[in-house]
Amino acid sequence: MKKLVISILLISISTTGISQKVNKKDSTIIKQIFDTSLTDGASYEWLDYMSNNIGSRLSGSLGAELAVTFTKEQMEELGIDKVWLQPVMVPKWTRGAQEYSYIETSPGVTSLADICALGGSVPTPYGGLKAAVVEVKNFEELRGLGREIIEGKIVFYNRPMQDNLIQTMNAYGGAVDQRYSGAEEAAKYGAVGVIVRSMSLSQDDFPHTGAMSYGNTPEHLRIPACAISTNGANYLSVTLKLQPDLLFYFSQNCKTYPDVQSYNVIGEITGSENPNKFIVVGGHLDSWDLGDGSHDDGAGCVQSMEVLRVFKKIGYQPKNTIRAVMFMNEENGLRGGIKYASEAKRKNEYHVFALESDSGGFTPRGFSFDASDANFTKIKSWDILFEPYLINRFVKGGSGADIGPLKKEGMATVLAGLNPDSQRYFEYHHAANDTFDKVNKRELELGAAAMTSIIYLIDKYGLQ
Amino acid sequence: MKKLVISILLISISTTGISQKVNKKDSTIIKQIFDTSLTDGASYEWLDYMSNNIGSRLSGSLGAELAVTFTKEQMEELGIDKVWLQPVMVPKWTRGAQEYSYIETSPGVTSLADICALGGSVPTPYGGLKAAVVEVKNFEELRGLGREIIEGKIVFYNRPMQDNLIQTMNAYGGAVDQRYSGAEEAAKYGAVGVIVRSMSLSQDDFPHTGAMSYGNTPEHLRIPACAISTNGANYLSVTLKLQPDLLFYFSQNCKTYPDVQSYNVIGEITGSENPNKFIVVGGHLDSWDLGDGSHDDGAGCVQSMEVLRVFKKIGYQPKNTIRAVMFMNEENGLRGGIKYASEAKRKNEYHVFALESDSGGFTPRGFSFDASDANFTKIKSWDILFEPYLINRFVKGGSGADIGPLKKEGMATVLAGLNPDSQRYFEYHHAANDTFDKVNKRELELGAAAMTSIIYLIDKYGLQ
Repeated sequence: MKKLVISILLISISTTGISQKVNKKDSTIIKQIFDTSLTDGASYEWLDYMSNNIGSRLSGSLGAELAVTFTKEQMEELGIDKVWLQPVMVPKWTRGAQEYSYIETSPGVTSLADICALGGSVPTPYGGLKAAVVEVKNFEELRGLGREIIEGKIVFYNRPMQDNLIQTMNAYGGAVDQRYSGAEEAAKYGAVGVIVRSMSLSQDDFPHTGAMSYGNTPEHLRIPACAISTNGANYLSVTLKLQPDLLFYFSQNCKTYPDVQSYNVIGEITGSENPNKFIVVGGHLDSWDLGDGSHDDGAGCVQSMEVLRVFKKIGYQPKNTIRAVMFMNEENGLRGGIKYASEAKRKNEYHVFALESDSGGFTPRGFSFDASDANFTKIKSWDILFEPYLINRFVKGGSGADIGPLKKEGMATVLAGLNPDSQRYFEYHHAANDTFDKVNKRELELGAAAMTSIIYLIDKYGLQ
Repeated sequence: MKKLVISILLISISTTGISQKVNKKDSTIIKQIFDTSLTDGASYEWLDYMSNNIGSRLSGSLGAELAVTFTKEQMEELGIDKVWLQPVMVPKWTRGAQEYSYIETSPGVTSLADICALGGSVPTPYGGLKAAVVEVKNFEELRGLGREIIEGKIVFYNRPMQDNLIQTMNAYGGAVDQRYSGAEEAAKYGAVGVIVRSMSLSQDDFPHTGAMSYGNTPEHLRIPACAISTNGANYLSVTLKLQPDLLFYFSQNCKTYPDVQSYNVIGEITGSENPNKFIVVGGHLDSWDLGDGSHDDGAGCVQSMEVLRVFKKIGYQPKNTIRAVMFMNEENGLRGGIKYASEAKRKNEYHVFALESDSGGFTPRGFSFDASDANFTKIKSWDILFEPYLINRFVKGGSGADIGPLKKEGMATVLAGLNPDSQRYFEYHHAANDTFDKVNKRELELGAAAMTSIIYLIDKYGLQ
């Protein structure tokens, strides 16, 4: 690349479009928001600290508590109106000593496999578990095989995420039942353990953890469940075809403890006109324990704090009360989101708008809105303001897990999620490679600026 | 991220839009193209080989020649109609032994600086060069200081790329004069050397090379020019403020040789209806020597080869002759692009369309078209077909360096460039970290599919 392929033309078209269709002042303020985030932002430095000085933040861990303290202190330094901790009891599950596993094709002939316990799994029996393996693609195939084939064996779920789906969330949605309910389903047929192909579109050696549930399975029938890397899954599958009677050994040392005290961290700029109407922006402070949770969801937390910082920095005084919430325990319980909503209900705090960033700190493409047609039409008329930033893809769709309960409780009608580019997300999601170096400073900052801008518009113009 | 935020709604909206506005068959074929590239693609594997088995490919180097052979062989294996080498003489500049540099604040007190010679620079004198440093932001400031201040010193250009420009190409365009003409300008005032802040938006330790020119400066007045990493530039600037009389030492061992023989590599599927009308898609095979040129522009090469492979794979027989061209010597001479155009002129090969991918292998966002209003309007009516892939940003603008000469020669009227997301590009551009691991498989493949799809449409429907 040598010649300058400059889209000056594009920019001038956009500017014209804006001046015709929306308030010139809005485009000026939004430019100020982007300039501030990109040239004088705090989000990247905050994330650096969270990722590299604190690290992973699974609910109930020391990391989670350090992150509560850190984000509280940082918001206090912003000089905003109010910062506090909202107590919430959270589950505590620990991985314990590192997992160990191998594939035995004949006595003494083994090869290692990259696994990790799924979040919430029981441990293997003392000394580990070794058994024959049955590979299936889905629960229907499992049922077809039945107890006769399954009993006493390890079920290996190996249905890959679908490569040709453009939005990778859809590919995740089409495969994650194996992880979430695989153990529950396999236990019905007498399986002794479960191996799940990692929820990843990459072929690599990282096992990806994530939440699983035993449903109503009685405690004594719960079987250990692990994820295997995609490379490991491919290898196991090929080896099984060559030697169907191979044995798989794994040992995992995870444990569920009684619930412990933790907190949502909340910062607030009180509204100048409607202090009792709320706009919330958030991400979740907890992360899985394998990486440092930079994309999931350190990014969403620091972007949400940046919203308040940028408003302070540019001197914007919101009409409504704006809160940034670092939700605790999205990954394995959603207790923080549920607690925030129930407290909102108890105090009758109606939320005009709730926005979550929990799809990684990648280049933002737009937002998806869970809104009525009337509200969506109003919001969509502003997309031209986001065109110069290439973040003008406003669509109807889902929002974020932590803000869902607000709607359920009737305390919010319009929810939204930031939609970043999704191609790389599942390369890192819930795995040891979700680390700070995978986040690009500008991409993170563009997301924070987009979030600040949409909140600015909703605060200013309101919704129905 | 746990809950499934699925944009099913979005997809169904898009599908409806398509069926109303364009041929259903087109959307089916385009889906087939994307499916093929994403689930059965060759581009990533090709790039792996080029990057990890061949490596950097500066014009005249062994790597460049190996890449000529490799891409020719791979295209021959596709079973397309014709594959050949188009001879072109190219410049040969070599870096020689690694550069060395330090900052001396008092005799014996030094700190190392990360530099690299700019492409085309002369070497430092035997034993290296040590001199005082004058920092400037631009040529105007240089002129203001004049010979009195500049003579006998090293000029340090330290104007950063502008952080708040959203399209990073624009930030590059606003800063690259320092690199390209800095030595020529500084020599006019008797400077003995030039240090240029790297063309990067990241703060890191990588110096970024790139083409520079001495213009009409006589040979004996040419001064050595190097790039310094952004961290190094910041450090040097701060240190200069504390100690304006510090000395900068650098040694570089680069050399320009006589031109050598090289080649453009061309593969062709001959048109079934208009064999003498051409559509060309390309990238440049040469790269700078510091990294392995994965983004710049291995990506564009393998994507262009993938266009032909996908057409063969899905059995599409183009009306016009489709060529994939691996242009040689874009980085420091553009000889390949010029040669291709002059040969097209000589043989009267009119090109309906020319497309280049030379902005990195990141998630594609759309294309920019250098086209008449009538042709742009026609092309833009197809953007809805690219909406399901989120690649529907069709704008007017520049194309690519290698295909520019085709237009100059009057052998093409419509040019285009693939526009990938630009946020990460200048983190790697021309630096040692432009390596294979920075390329995401899906992002690369989406680009190849988008290129194949736009060529399919133009081949089918034609342009004016």
